[in-house]
Amino acid sequence: MTNLIRNCWYVAGWSWEFSDKPEARMIVGDPIVLFRTSKGKIAALEDRCVHRMAPLSLGRVEGDSIRCMYHGLKFDAGGQCTEIPGQDLIPKQACVRQYPVVEKSNWIWVWMGDPERADPARIADSKALDDPEWVLKTGQLEYDANYELINDNLLDLTHLAYVHANSFGADEAWSLNRPNLEVLPDGVRSSRWIRNTPPTPPLGEAAEHEKVDIWTSYDFILPGVFLLYTAIFEKGTAEACHDEEPDPNRRVLFSNFTSQAVTAVSERKTRYYYSWGPHSSQGDAEMAQAMIDVARQAFNEDKVMIEAQQKVIDTNTDVRPMPTSADKSITIFQRLMRKQDEPQDAEGDLESAAS
Amino acid sequence: MTNLIRNCWYVAGWSWEFSDKPEARMIVGDPIVLFRTSKGKIAALEDRCVHRMAPLSLGRVEGDSIRCMYHGLKFDAGGQCTEIPGQDLIPKQACVRQYPVVEKSNWIWVWMGDPERADPARIADSKALDDPEWVLKTGQLEYDANYELINDNLLDLTHLAYVHANSFGADEAWSLNRPNLEVLPDGVRSSRWIRNTPPTPPLGEAAEHEKVDIWTSYDFILPGVFLLYTAIFEKGTAEACHDEEPDPNRRVLFSNFTSQAVTAVSERKTRYYYSWGPHSSQGDAEMAQAMIDVARQAFNEDKVMIEAQQKVIDTNTDVRPMPTSADKSITIFQRLMRKQDEPQDAEGDLESAAS
Amino acid sequence: MTNLIRNCWYVAGWSWEFSDKPEARMIVGDPIVLFRTSKGKIAALEDRCVHRMAPLSLGRVEGDSIRCMYHGLKFDAGGQCTEIPGQDLIPKQACVRQYPVVEKSNWIWVWMGDPERADPARIADSKALDDPEWVLKTGQLEYDANYELINDNLLDLTHLAYVHANSFGADEAWSLNRPNLEVLPDGVRSSRWIRNTPPTPPLGEAAEHEKVDIWTSYDFILPGVFLLYTAIFEKGTAEACHDEEPDPNRRVLFSNFTSQAVTAVSERKTRYYYSWGPHSSQGDAEMAQAMIDVARQAFNEDKVMIEAQQKVIDTNTDVRPMPTSADKSITIFQRLMRKQDEPQDAEGDLESAAS
Repeated sequence: MTNLIRNCWYVAGWSWEFSDKPEARMIVGDPIVLFRTSKGKIAALEDRCVHRMAPLSLGRVEGDSIRCMYHGLKFDAGGQCTEIPGQDLIPKQACVRQYPVVEKSNWIWVWMGDPERADPARIADSKALDDPEWVLKTGQLEYDANYELINDNLLDLTHLAYVHANSFGADEAWSLNRPNLEVLPDGVRSSRWIRNTPPTPPLGEAAEHEKVDIWTSYDFILPGVFLLYTAIFEKGTAEACHDEEPDPNRRVLFSNFTSQAVTAVSERKTRYYYSWGPHSSQGDAEMAQAMIDVARQAFNEDKVMIEAQQKVIDTNTDVRPMPTSADKSITIFQRLMRKQDEPQDAEGDLESAAS
Repeated sequence: MTNLIRNCWYVAGWSWEFSDKPEARMIVGDPIVLFRTSKGKIAALEDRCVHRMAPLSLGRVEGDSIRCMYHGLKFDAGGQCTEIPGQDLIPKQACVRQYPVVEKSNWIWVWMGDPERADPARIADSKALDDPEWVLKTGQLEYDANYELINDNLLDLTHLAYVHANSFGADEAWSLNRPNLEVLPDGVRSSRWIRNTPPTPPLGEAAEHEKVDIWTSYDFILPGVFLLYTAIFEKGTAEACHDEEPDPNRRVLFSNFTSQAVTAVSERKTRYYYSWGPHSSQGDAEMAQAMIDVARQAFNEDKVMIEAQQKVIDTNTDVRPMPTSADKSITIFQRLMRKQDEPQDAEGDLESAAS
Repeated sequence: MTNLIRNCWYVAGWSWEFSDKPEARMIVGDPIVLFRTSKGKIAALEDRCVHRMAPLSLGRVEGDSIRCMYHGLKFDAGGQCTEIPGQDLIPKQACVRQYPVVEKSNWIWVWMGDPERADPARIADSKALDDPEWVLKTGQLEYDANYELINDNLLDLTHLAYVHANSFGADEAWSLNRPNLEVLPDGVRSSRWIRNTPPTPPLGEAAEHEKVDIWTSYDFILPGVFLLYTAIFEKGTAEACHDEEPDPNRRVLFSNFTSQAVTAVSERKTRYYYSWGPHSSQGDAEMAQAMIDVARQAFNEDKVMIEAQQKVIDTNTDVRPMPTSADKSITIFQRLMRKQDEPQDAEGDLESAAS
C-alpha cells in the first residue's frame, strides 16, 4: 500500500537545472517533463505523449511548445496537442496533464494533486540563495528508500547523538530532552535548547568555547521541507532564558540556517535538496562551503542508516514501529500528510494531536 | 497480462550460431536448446531436463542426442529420453518438448505454438545472404522492451522524420503522407512515395541529387519480419507515376533491401536481427557494410526511444495509446497477431480491418 | 509458496567471524544480528530495533548489551530493551526476538523456529577443526538459488560423474549403482561402494593405483548438514566385503572427511560452509589445502549448474521434477524437512518412506 501523497508542492529541482532543453523528473510515481518556454517561464507536463506513451522529455522545445520526437506530435505549455504531422483533425482529448508549477527561492515546486487545490501561498518559506541575511551553498542526494523514512529522520533530531557523533560532533545531550512542539497550518514547529554541549558546528566565535548552549528551532512543512535555525550561545543561556526562546538581546556566538526538501520520487526512491550556511555577519562563502561538506558527510551517514532500515522493513512489512516520546512530531506530521489526500471537507483540527 | 503469441515462426538466430555445441535461447518465455545433430540438421528442444529441470544447454551433444550434464539423462532429437544412468526402466513420459524448427535464408525459425499448425510455407520470405540480387551484411541487437513496441515502430515509418533525422537523414516529408495498405494473409503491405526529399541513403547515383522521390514498400509478416524495398528516383517521378507503384521502365538511381526480424524473448526482452544492402548492380560489400553501420546507429536511436517508452508505460499500465491516422497498419497487425492464438475456426477475414 | 523451514539449527557462520563488533546475517528470511558479550558468549537477536526498525547490526556492543545507533535504544543479550535515551518508562513489549544460539565444532548454530523445541542435542556432529583424527581446511560460497536445490545436489552423488568429471575426476561408475539408505532420526544415511574407478582424490597411497574401490558413506542431517566419509581401497575390496561396510581390518589407501552446511538465507539465496581434509595419519595441512582448492573448483561447477537450474525453474514454476531411482534420499529428506514445521504431535514414523 502506497503512502505517497499527491496534494502537495514538491521540489522538482533547482531553478538552474531547467532551460529549453526538456528535463525528466519522477515525483510520487508520475513521470514529468519540465522545460522553460520562450519567455523563460517554467512548464511541467505529464512526460508521456498521448499517442504511444513516448517520453516528451526526449522531445524538443519549440517556442512555448514541446514536440514529441517519436512521431512529431506537438503540445503547448498547457498540455494541449496542437499538431499531429500528416493529420488535419486533432482530437480534443489529445492532451497531456499539466501540473501547476511555481519557481520560488531557487526551487521549482510542482503540485502533484488536484489542480483546484494548488495554492502557491502554501509553498514553504525556504531561503533563497540571494537572501541577504544568510550565506548559502547547496547540495543534493538520492535515497533508495521511502520518503517517510527521511521525513522521520528530520522530525526527530535525537539521532544526532548517535548517527552524527563523528560528522556534526553532536553528543548525548541531543538525545536527552524533548522539544516544544507547535502545530502549524501546514506542518510542525519544534524548538528546544541543547544545554552544555560542544558547539556544532564549531565555527565563528563558538569555536572558542568547549561547551555551549544551542538553540534549535525548525519548521517541518508539507510534504517534507525542513527549515532549521541554529544559534549557539554561551553556556548558561538556556537557564537564563528559562528554556524559552532566546532573548533577542543575548549575544549569538554563531548562527546558521538550512533549508532542506524531501521529494518522494517513487515508493522506494527519494530525492533530497539542501542549502546551508552561516549568518552573513558571521561567515562567508568559504565557511558555507565547509558547512556543506560536513553536511554531505552527515547526510551520507543518514543514507547508510536509512537505506539499511528500509531493507529491514522490506523483510517484513507487517512489523510496526514502537513510538517513543521523541516521535510525537513524526506522528503529527504523518497524520497531516495523510489528510492532504482526503476529501477537503474532512480536514479538521490537528491541534489535538500535539497534546 | 501477456501479449506474447505462440503460433508463429520466430527467428532463433543466424544459421552459423548453431553447431554440436548446444545453445540456449529464450523465445516467448520458453527456454529452448538448439543444436545440430551428426548430419548437421538443427534440433530445438525444451531447455529443461525432465528429471530436475536442469538446462540441457549445459549438456553435451552425443551424435543425434543430447545428454544432460547434471545427472546424465540422454534425449534424442525428438525429445524422448533414451537413457537414465543406473536405471533400466525409462518412463514413457520422460520426454522434453520438441519444437518444429526450419533453417531458411540463414535464419533458424522455431514454431512456438501448436505443432499441428506449424506450416513452413508460412515462414516469411526474407532474403538469403547469397541472394544474387542483393549484397547484404548483417547485425543484431537486444531491447529491454516488449516486442510490440518494436513492431509498432517498424509499422509506422513517420518516425524516421524525428528519430532518424541524424542517422538516415530523413526529413519531414516522411511524416506528411500516409501509405497505401494491403492486408496480406500473414501480414500487411505498406507502400508509398516520399516526394521531394533528400536521398536516404545518399548512395550511388542518388548522391548526385539534392532532392529525390523515394518509393518505399515493405511487407510486415508475422510475428515481426520486416521486408523493406527502397528505391530512389529523380524528383517528379512520383507525380509521373500518379503515386502508384513505379513504372519498371523508370531509371532507379539507387535501391536497397533489408530483412529484419523481431523475436519476443520475454515480456520485457526482445531480440532483433537484420540484414541490409544495395542492389548488386549498384553497390558492393563495402557499401553494404557502410549501410549496416548507419543502420546500427539508427537502431540505437530507436532503442533509446523505445526503452524509454517502455519505462513510461510501466509507470502506469492503465494508460492506453491514442491512435493517429498513421497507426492503421499497427491496428491491423496487432489484431492479426492476436488471432494466431485463437482457436483455428475463429479465423475470419481481416480485409475489413484495413478499410 | 515458500519451502523455508524454521524448526532447525542453521549454521550462521564460523566461530571466528563473531566478536563484539555486531554482524548481520539473514537466515530463512529473518534478519539476525550476532555478537559476543563481554564474556565471549554468542548472542543472536532480531536485527530490527523495536523503535523504527533500524538494524541493530549497525549498532554498538556495550558490555553484554547492544545499542541501536539510530536513536540510542539499548537491548540486553536476551533482547529486552533496557534504555530509551530521554525517556524514563520502558514499555514491557520493547524487546526484540532472541534466537537460541549454540557454538559447536567451530560453527555458530541458530534455531529459527519455536524456542521451546530448540534442543542442542539435535545439532549435527560436524567435525571440529581441532579434531585429532582429521586435518581440515575450510571454505564457503553463496548461491543465488533456493537451498533445496543444493540439498538435492548433495543427496544424489550420481552427479559426480557428469558435473565433476574434471575437478574430482569421477567417472561413470558413480552414476551406475544406488546407495543403501538408512533413515536417521534427523536425516538420512547413504552408503555404497563405487567399484573399479579412478581414485578420487588421487592422494596418498591411492595415487599409485589406476583403479580402486571407493567406500562412501554420508549422513545428511537437518536442515542441510552433509557429513561424508570417503575411504579408498584396492580394487576388489567391495566384492570381498559383499558390498557391505568395509571390514575394519582392510587396509585403507586413503581416507578423508568433509563437513558441509547448507543455510537457507532467503527464497533465492543460500550460503554454504565446508571443511575437508585427509585422515591425520595420511596427510597434512598442505594436502588439506590442496583438497579444499579442488573442492572450491567442484563447488563452482555445482554453482553454475544449480543457478542455471534455478533460472529454468523460475521460467515456469508449475513444472514438477520427474524423480528417478537415484532420488529416493531426496524424497525422504524433503518430507523430513517439511515435518519440522508441522505441529509436534503430527510427527510420525519416517521409516516407511525409505522402503
